Amino acid sequence: MLSSIRSLTRALPAKAAAPGLVSAMRHYAIPPMTVKKDPRADKWDSEVFNVMDVPMAETHERVLKGGRDLFPKLTESFGGVKKIGVIGWGSQGPAQAQNLRDSLEGTDITVTVGLREGSSSMKLAEEVGFSKENGTLGEMYDVIRESDLVCLLISDAAVAHEYPKVFENLKKGATLGLSHGFLLGHLKNTGDSFPKDTNVIMVAPKGVGASVRRLYEQGKSVNGAGINASFAVEQDADGKATDIALAWSVALGSPFTFYTTMDSEFKSDIFGERCILLGGVHGMIECLFRKYVSDGMSKEDAFKQTSECITGPLTETISHRGIDQVYHHLIKSDEDKVAFKKAYTASYGPSRDIVEECYDDVACGNEIKSVINAGDRHDRFPMCKIDVTETWKVGAKVRAARDGSFVVNPTTAGVYCAMMMAQIDTLLDRGHCYSEVANESVIEAVDSLNPFMHARGVAYMVDSCSVTARLGSRKWAPRFDYILTEQCLPVLDENKSADEKLFDDFLNHRIHAVMKTCGEMRPSVDIAVV
Amino acid sequence: MLSSIRSLTRALPAKAAAPGLVSAMRHYAIPPMTVKKDPRADKWDSEVFNVMDVPMAETHERVLKGGRDLFPKLTESFGGVKKIGVIGWGSQGPAQAQNLRDSLEGTDITVTVGLREGSSSMKLAEEVGFSKENGTLGEMYDVIRESDLVCLLISDAAVAHEYPKVFENLKKGATLGLSHGFLLGHLKNTGDSFPKDTNVIMVAPKGVGASVRRLYEQGKSVNGAGINASFAVEQDADGKATDIALAWSVALGSPFTFYTTMDSEFKSDIFGERCILLGGVHGMIECLFRKYVSDGMSKEDAFKQTSECITGPLTETISHRGIDQVYHHLIKSDEDKVAFKKAYTASYGPSRDIVEECYDDVACGNEIKSVINAGDRHDRFPMCKIDVTETWKVGAKVRAARDGSFVVNPTTAGVYCAMMMAQIDTLLDRGHCYSEVANESVIEAVDSLNPFMHARGVAYMVDSCSVTARLGSRKWAPRFDYILTEQCLPVLDENKSADEKLFDDFLNHRIHAVMKTCGEMRPSVDIAVV
Repeated sequence: MLSSIRSLTRALPAKAAAPGLVSAMRHYAIPPMTVKKDPRADKWDSEVFNVMDVPMAETHERVLKGGRDLFPKLTESFGGVKKIGVIGWGSQGPAQAQNLRDSLEGTDITVTVGLREGSSSMKLAEEVGFSKENGTLGEMYDVIRESDLVCLLISDAAVAHEYPKVFENLKKGATLGLSHGFLLGHLKNTGDSFPKDTNVIMVAPKGVGASVRRLYEQGKSVNGAGINASFAVEQDADGKATDIALAWSVALGSPFTFYTTMDSEFKSDIFGERCILLGGVHGMIECLFRKYVSDGMSKEDAFKQTSECITGPLTETISHRGIDQVYHHLIKSDEDKVAFKKAYTASYGPSRDIVEECYDDVACGNEIKSVINAGDRHDRFPMCKIDVTETWKVGAKVRAARDGSFVVNPTTAGVYCAMMMAQIDTLLDRGHCYSEVANESVIEAVDSLNPFMHARGVAYMVDSCSVTARLGSRKWAPRFDYILTEQCLPVLDENKSADEKLFDDFLNHRIHAVMKTCGEMRPSVDIAVV
Repeated sequence: MLSSIRSLTRALPAKAAAPGLVSAMRHYAIPPMTVKKDPRADKWDSEVFNVMDVPMAETHERVLKGGRDLFPKLTESFGGVKKIGVIGWGSQGPAQAQNLRDSLEGTDITVTVGLREGSSSMKLAEEVGFSKENGTLGEMYDVIRESDLVCLLISDAAVAHEYPKVFENLKKGATLGLSHGFLLGHLKNTGDSFPKDTNVIMVAPKGVGASVRRLYEQGKSVNGAGINASFAVEQDADGKATDIALAWSVALGSPFTFYTTMDSEFKSDIFGERCILLGGVHGMIECLFRKYVSDGMSKEDAFKQTSECITGPLTETISHRGIDQVYHHLIKSDEDKVAFKKAYTASYGPSRDIVEECYDDVACGNEIKSVINAGDRHDRFPMCKIDVTETWKVGAKVRAARDGSFVVNPTTAGVYCAMMMAQIDTLLDRGHCYSEVANESVIEAVDSLNPFMHARGVAYMVDSCSVTARLGSRKWAPRFDYILTEQCLPVLDENKSADEKLFDDFLNHRIHAVMKTCGEMRPSVDIAVV
């Protein structure tokens, strides 16, 4: 065969009909100025708490500001709920069970943890004070049958398998609570539905369980700190669903609670963790780390100028000042500003491309179906850790040798901001409200996940998330890496001048005003992790 | 935030609960010895051609051997079909239209190409002799309305959009022909179905259009050479469907035609191109190229020991001698044999893991849905070329400077064979027949795609395939790269001894007997490409 391969023949047209790089960079839609808002978003109210209208760019959104001063009203807001069952001990379970218990101390509402009989988590729940003896720990279906509010916090794959039995075992008049719209997405895939005449609510903290608990503890002395949450009322059987959801959110310590639907939540949440929150940032770091090393940087420096730069100064600046302030405030020299601009405009297009693909795959149900499929394979192919590769080994060394100073690499900064903006624009374009966009694209990154990554590494963070997030991050990180390598790095290497129009869009983007509003509602406590 | 991050606090458990590397390597299923066979697979027959039973490992499978000596029987086998409409001018269209026309020369059966009015492909069809003047070229729906057999070869995304109109415009008694089960997969996703009382058949050449044409031309003087095809009869309205399908396949020049179903075809085909045929080999080369360079090899040598090794000596050996002969024949020294073994056993597990995931995503309809979604994005985000990265730039230089000698790298060889075997085992495990497994996992690689990659590069090959294949390759190559980087390279670096049991499974695998049977039916002509 080899000799014949070498012979000169005609077989294919001389050039593949593939569009070039540049054309792909031009096409992206600017989201409409007015977000398509769910009509119910402006109308919801509480009979107990004061809901506020806050300015969000060209519009207003209703939010409930949290705080420990609201705890005395929890009993009223929870209505007839006397027994809360927290089912599961994964990412959210331990945090929510403890926060709820602490917030409801001194009331007649009890919090009981329900787990599979024989689960190794029983011991962990006992270690923080739940016990079978005093009735605050039990077999999950026993707990479900006795609870007025069932907070179903088992893994998504487990929810998909267990939900029919959960529905059957709900007490009459009980409220089903979820912290994720995943189950709704799964029901849409399978054509099934929630049980009729039952409250179905959701409170979805916009951060991993560890930070939900950590910030709650840190905020004890300052009238609260915590992770923002969205809430949704999927079914309101008795007219009390909204206030039960708000009570749940306030008791978790959410600084602000905003309105969403379960449909909107599962789309933005599963999407967000695959993009800038986990998968995107992981892939970006691998890509840029490789580039910098190939350009001649030492591996340690390359890690400092990618991962450390993102989880350190970039995160701090965005958290406290806003995304645009990375350019205006953090990047100092004119030369670096030019480099930032070039990196931003070279990476926005490819980022938008892959982010849009990810959104479509989530919205149509594919990602949910893949997660369920993966659950069926995990006995044969358990998920492995990702922190075995060179990048993360170098990272562990760099973290151990930190001296308190951090480098700001303008290229890394440009790519990071562009990917964040690509995610923001995609969510706005698909009709998500500003509160959801800001939380899923910015606040969850800089106030919940990046601090953990900073302390323990991106790979550690990925390996510590929910199975759905871990699977998604594994799946999409390589895609982000490849598309940046194939479509952004060649543009940077050519050192073309930046696309000024695209960059102006960034500087003038209405998300900056939104972030300002969110910043005013932000608790004064930063999460502290090592 | 930075200062608080640095303060020592407790927040997460000290270790993420992630299983280690080794456990993931152990779990894979050995497919059952007897393939679950479709009961119709043993019963189909032709009223015109002699169908043979050929030995395939522990069983037999029915196949039709092709050849130019069968062309005189084409008119009889095509039955009442007088007008064949070939719709589309993508990968398969040009090849099939020309092969059909050439094979039917001198008969009263005409071949007409149908294209969208104003399509730029009109000119290309005219260049090879189809013309409006003599009635062999026309607007696609005009051609569909007049044809007795409609070979619908437009892109998968176009099929998904156009099929209702195609169904409406079929002439009464006409046969609908497809070269891919994609439409069936799409109909399953949407809940739609084929028109009743219509023959629906499939002939699916197991290679890109360019090789279907190229080998047909090369085989003119030796009673034929070509690309094997599978056929399926999804609906047989008039009892003639099987013979029409076989006539179509023989006229394309298929050396052997085997039975499948459209369901089985779309699963194995969409899966195969995402794995060893395109996506898998692309990702593997990127991973190993990076490893070899990082180990100190020059970039040119790294390309020679990855891509050139695969598309050169490995491809030739597997094509002419079989997969096991890479170990027995191609790898010479004892030292290299040990290296091959280690690479094989370190990479089989991770390859099997990702290959199983890919199969699940194809079988459940996700991949088809993603392709449709992508089609809706391509006006804003056209697919870019992938051959802009360093690996492929080095590759172009290496190809230009070839001196006829090729290096056999035992690690590359071990990883390649392991990925091929992982694909084979997954397909057998899911009940695909040996003919389909051998063609989708081995023959299409070494006799159709790899020779093109050898001549023009892997990236070129990817960019020249169908949109469905190109999308899939872009999607899965990075996944293969990452899983090998995360789970195979660390094992190689530790230099552990090989898993002897796993390697014995490889050497004693029944696929080797199957490949021997296939080799006996293989035409004596190798594809010649530059």
